Amino acid sequence: MFANCIQEVRKTTPLIHNITNYVTVNDVANVLLACGGSPIMSDEPEDVADITSICGGLNINIGTLNQQSIQAMLIAGKKANELEHVVLLDPVGAGASALRTRTALTLMQELKLDAIRGNISEIKTLALGSGTTKGVDADGADAVTEENLDAMISFAKNFAQKTNNILAITGAIDLVADAQTCYVIRNGRPEMGKITGTGCQLSALMTAFLVANPGQKLEAAAAAVCMMGLAGEIGYGKLQDGEGNATYRNRIIDAIYHMDGKTLEEGAKYEVR
Amino acid sequence: MFANCIQEVRKTTPLIHNITNYVTVNDVANVLLACGGSPIMSDEPEDVADITSICGGLNINIGTLNQQSIQAMLIAGKKANELEHVVLLDPVGAGASALRTRTALTLMQELKLDAIRGNISEIKTLALGSGTTKGVDADGADAVTEENLDAMISFAKNFAQKTNNILAITGAIDLVADAQTCYVIRNGRPEMGKITGTGCQLSALMTAFLVANPGQKLEAAAAAVCMMGLAGEIGYGKLQDGEGNATYRNRIIDAIYHMDGKTLEEGAKYEVR
Amino acid sequence: MFANCIQEVRKTTPLIHNITNYVTVNDVANVLLACGGSPIMSDEPEDVADITSICGGLNINIGTLNQQSIQAMLIAGKKANELEHVVLLDPVGAGASALRTRTALTLMQELKLDAIRGNISEIKTLALGSGTTKGVDADGADAVTEENLDAMISFAKNFAQKTNNILAITGAIDLVADAQTCYVIRNGRPEMGKITGTGCQLSALMTAFLVANPGQKLEAAAAAVCMMGLAGEIGYGKLQDGEGNATYRNRIIDAIYHMDGKTLEEGAKYEVR
Repeated sequence: MFANCIQEVRKTTPLIHNITNYVTVNDVANVLLACGGSPIMSDEPEDVADITSICGGLNINIGTLNQQSIQAMLIAGKKANELEHVVLLDPVGAGASALRTRTALTLMQELKLDAIRGNISEIKTLALGSGTTKGVDADGADAVTEENLDAMISFAKNFAQKTNNILAITGAIDLVADAQTCYVIRNGRPEMGKITGTGCQLSALMTAFLVANPGQKLEAAAAAVCMMGLAGEIGYGKLQDGEGNATYRNRIIDAIYHMDGKTLEEGAKYEVR
Repeated sequence: MFANCIQEVRKTTPLIHNITNYVTVNDVANVLLACGGSPIMSDEPEDVADITSICGGLNINIGTLNQQSIQAMLIAGKKANELEHVVLLDPVGAGASALRTRTALTLMQELKLDAIRGNISEIKTLALGSGTTKGVDADGADAVTEENLDAMISFAKNFAQKTNNILAITGAIDLVADAQTCYVIRNGRPEMGKITGTGCQLSALMTAFLVANPGQKLEAAAAAVCMMGLAGEIGYGKLQDGEGNATYRNRIIDAIYHMDGKTLEEGAKYEVR
Repeated sequence: MFANCIQEVRKTTPLIHNITNYVTVNDVANVLLACGGSPIMSDEPEDVADITSICGGLNINIGTLNQQSIQAMLIAGKKANELEHVVLLDPVGAGASALRTRTALTLMQELKLDAIRGNISEIKTLALGSGTTKGVDADGADAVTEENLDAMISFAKNFAQKTNNILAITGAIDLVADAQTCYVIRNGRPEMGKITGTGCQLSALMTAFLVANPGQKLEAAAAAVCMMGLAGEIGYGKLQDGEGNATYRNRIIDAIYHMDGKTLEEGAKYEVR
């Protein structure tokens, strides 16, 4: 039950260590607070082992990586693994540069990840071991559509099996898969793509859900994806005349702040395949 | 008079150099503009001495410290001391990692600080010289309450005396103390804890108030704390149906933007002990 | 036609690489999305050549420069030059520190810039090769006014000629000049100065306009300046009772999100000199 997943977050206030980009970091912190979690940010190699030790989970986002933060990601990730904390990777821009692709692949090799969340172009890059994307947004030609859905579900399950973690591919249609099961999710609004960082926010949210729901990780990951998309729908409905992407950003976080289990259950649009 | 403190900020437009974390930096800049001050950010060791020289005060916040910014804090702090500028320390996460605790203690030793502002867990860490906190938020077990208020006032005055600066411990009840006098402040809303960076904003605001009111520093620091809390109350009252922590963040800064001396005087809830 | 300039941005979705400060970076990303462009941020020397290669333009902003990002600016700039991409420089705080002044001058020497956008104090610093400013905001004594307008237009054209690029000096009156022609623009609101980063946002917007309008660069730069100022007017008109600078920031980006060519044409206030 998704309602249960969100209640666990609110009951346990998971503290999440975020090594994330400086573009969307403020929204990441506020979305964690909105969902009932608690954020802490640190990307200094000397600081991260201590910080991650007091947390429940680690959210690694390579959006504005640098040599120092890459080192910090590895140190924090290994410490989190040692402590059996949840670790999630958001491979922002994998495929857009050699450094990003290589860093994402290194993190996958060196760390035990619980989940990877990215857009389809990033995930294809990881699956192929190389790639070209047109920036930090997915290439339209790659999109998950109703037409290629069966093939994409197979791709997701296979990649989840190969990497032994939960894979979330988000876009107009979202897929959240492990080796056996794939949630196909149809929440969200296209206008969310006009806000920077909804993906980064979702990765943080998903980390909190995974930490708070150790016994039902796949369902928790899917609940986080539905919650973000549903918040996009609710926030869109609250937009007043003349409000655009800047205000919409706030209305989405506000919707997460107010969302209860019942609203999530009733608004979630998904099938299990 | 608090009204006078705010008028001095608006009249003199203090320029504040902030070496601060990248999570809440935008809100820090906007709150400084809202109160009538002016912000500048720089954390490059080669840049900070020049930058701090043209400012009136320096706000040091260790929220996302790194090796470079720690160096910059020391260089800027020493230059600010040399020029007799106001220097404030916000020891974000002191107690949460060895590096943060050590850095905060080093800054206290190496610099002449005018004020320290933190939550009770951070301040206890500084007082003890070591500590464990559960992140960047105060540990509930440490809180200043009506029950332990007398003891906490003594603690605050003693630590202020020992360190020879103004000490602000903020939480549900705020204490602003020097060696002789302690303001006990009861403004604010619990929902402010669901927004990232209200503490960081307050530290910047307090720096501006200290710079603009050299003849009445303790009162100015207390005025800044009341103003932030009162803005939290006013902003909360402006929330519309469905608005949550993201919009609330803006409404607080908006309330600071519009707050005049009369509103502050009438809304401030404090006793002097 | 300004309407045409904006339509080209919306039609071509220019991808802009931003090496920019961490204070206003989120607003920079959202304003690029609002206008119809697409943002990507990277300031790691090893990452920037790849990232800029997949973009259409490069927006360099020295607001929180450091040794690493300065190196990244030069690497990215040279790669962008090699690929004949648009490169814009926003010399934030030139004149406020030796490092900022020197960095801005070095970037001007080492790179072929298409445009420079700054406030009058920053631009005067670049023209003189040195300077003192009172922070990141223009010194009032330097302002472009109706009284000194003729002289300032000459200054702008001369400096544009000398540097062989488009020069935008923004303030209460904005000047956008090349060697022959100067747009004098009177859009905007004084309250925009109470928001951090409207200048940074404009630089990003201008980069997108230049990329999307290669055949009419001066007009495109002027259109971006008018659009930002007009959005400030429209956003101001949407402010509700009690809303201040934090909400105003969002309303400006929202106004850009909704602005169409007709609104821009009708609202633009400029003369060509």
